[in-house]
Amino acid sequence: MDHRRSRTSATRRLFEEERSAEIVADSFADTPDPRLQHVMTSLTQHLHDFVKDVGLTVEEWEAAIRYLTATGQKCSDTRQEFILLSDVLGVSMLVETINNRSDGTATEATVEGPFHVVDSRPRELGDTIAEPGSGEPCLVTGRVLDRTGTPVPGAVVDVWQADADGYYDVQHETRPEYDLRGLFTTDGNGTFWFRTIMPRYYPIPDDGPVGELLEKTARHPNRPAHIHFEVSAPGFRTLTTHVFVADSPYIDDDTVFGVKASLVREFTQVDDPRRAAAAGLDNPFRTVDFEVVLGA
Amino acid sequence: MDHRRSRTSATRRLFEEERSAEIVADSFADTPDPRLQHVMTSLTQHLHDFVKDVGLTVEEWEAAIRYLTATGQKCSDTRQEFILLSDVLGVSMLVETINNRSDGTATEATVEGPFHVVDSRPRELGDTIAEPGSGEPCLVTGRVLDRTGTPVPGAVVDVWQADADGYYDVQHETRPEYDLRGLFTTDGNGTFWFRTIMPRYYPIPDDGPVGELLEKTARHPNRPAHIHFEVSAPGFRTLTTHVFVADSPYIDDDTVFGVKASLVREFTQVDDPRRAAAAGLDNPFRTVDFEVVLGA
Repeated sequence: MDHRRSRTSATRRLFEEERSAEIVADSFADTPDPRLQHVMTSLTQHLHDFVKDVGLTVEEWEAAIRYLTATGQKCSDTRQEFILLSDVLGVSMLVETINNRSDGTATEATVEGPFHVVDSRPRELGDTIAEPGSGEPCLVTGRVLDRTGTPVPGAVVDVWQADADGYYDVQHETRPEYDLRGLFTTDGNGTFWFRTIMPRYYPIPDDGPVGELLEKTARHPNRPAHIHFEVSAPGFRTLTTHVFVADSPYIDDDTVFGVKASLVREFTQVDDPRRAAAAGLDNPFRTVDFEVVLGA
Repeated sequence: MDHRRSRTSATRRLFEEERSAEIVADSFADTPDPRLQHVMTSLTQHLHDFVKDVGLTVEEWEAAIRYLTATGQKCSDTRQEFILLSDVLGVSMLVETINNRSDGTATEATVEGPFHVVDSRPRELGDTIAEPGSGEPCLVTGRVLDRTGTPVPGAVVDVWQADADGYYDVQHETRPEYDLRGLFTTDGNGTFWFRTIMPRYYPIPDDGPVGELLEKTARHPNRPAHIHFEVSAPGFRTLTTHVFVADSPYIDDDTVFGVKASLVREFTQVDDPRRAAAAGLDNPFRTVDFEVVLGA
């Protein structure tokens, strides 16, 4: 590159502690994409503020370099350690939230998570997504509405969840068919219902740098029990969210900060052989109703 | 881990955009090491402030995850891409500076850089560190002083530099002996002097993610010409710094922000056969005087 090329900025970029962020930000003055320039300028300012606020030592900086390197090198085709790091620092939830702000009427979003990796099988309303006898029976019912409360017929409700041991189907080494996933379509009243088992809370992968961070900060690696929902219909913004089990361990301490108060539901205990038989479930069972309001 | 274990904090960590950093910071409440808790709390606050300030999109977050992953995976035994990233964001210089603050009398520090990887050979004052005829001749003179201006005899002055093509010895594939390095000891007057050639400006490695960032932000990868100094003496803090060549390309635009105004020196042209002969150099030559003041 020709060192004589002109620069937009005529600033002499001589380093000074007080003006450090300003000097670095100035080096981005010629960035062709104004959005990239804005993002890099802000990132520089916040990074420098952080280093100054804590008075980062050389040893801490070296530890940070080693940590980021190890995090990158832990990544593979089946493992994304930087997403996990973003998750446990609440950054993933923050990005999800600011990009899917609710107007207070639409159902709130939460993170998609790493397990939406196979297509859910289309199923009939009332079908079970669980193998019989594989856990505590559960009936899930709900409706999809627009923000005026009008039902949305024909909405596609994609659900997936962990099993009674806290594992997703794809985490089992051998499994003939994927289960605990289903693709349902709401009926003429915007209603959906299906049978399943109670999901269990589970730990995120903690045998890498993120697990080391959790260990050193006395944090546990667990997420409270939940069922994932992705709900879509023509003319609406697709919603990615969870319904959380109110009495699950870790309900108030999700290690990825995915729980929003509006997404927690009681999974009610039912001990009624007639209702169980009508639903096609063993008695007793649990049930939850989850009303989904789609935004535009 | 037992989910019933007690927590210091009784906060329910349900996610809210407005309180996001506070909620995540609270999850570090039980960190045994108070310094680690302080650093993680501050990091969380600044990260969340950054995401909110720019309104980071999901696509940008995904690009950041990919970028950090590629940076980690570019690292090897001979390449540290995260240090390069820290360098071009001015973070390395900031950390170096806040950990080696001058009181205004001691010589300022700058980054050590990645090329201080072999021990410099001990040499006699006046020796040359360059192969004869390998570049523009240069005489370097100087003194080591304490902050009261008293000379420091017996100070060890370790110097290393790039050659006339901008390469360090270790960057050449075959080189029988390392050169352009020397370990000198100041005489009874705190004086040192040696012969060398003029160093050239050079690019940092730019064939990885850091090079991609520089390209996308229209930044060049170059550092202005400089000679590295590491000066140590019993009872003083070891100083790691450079002396920069005032008329070098990029002198006001070092891609790693290593230049401080106090470290720039004129390398004066001398056309005087008698002075050249006295110094043991071909005529004409360049010369610089660098007075180093050690701090406590």
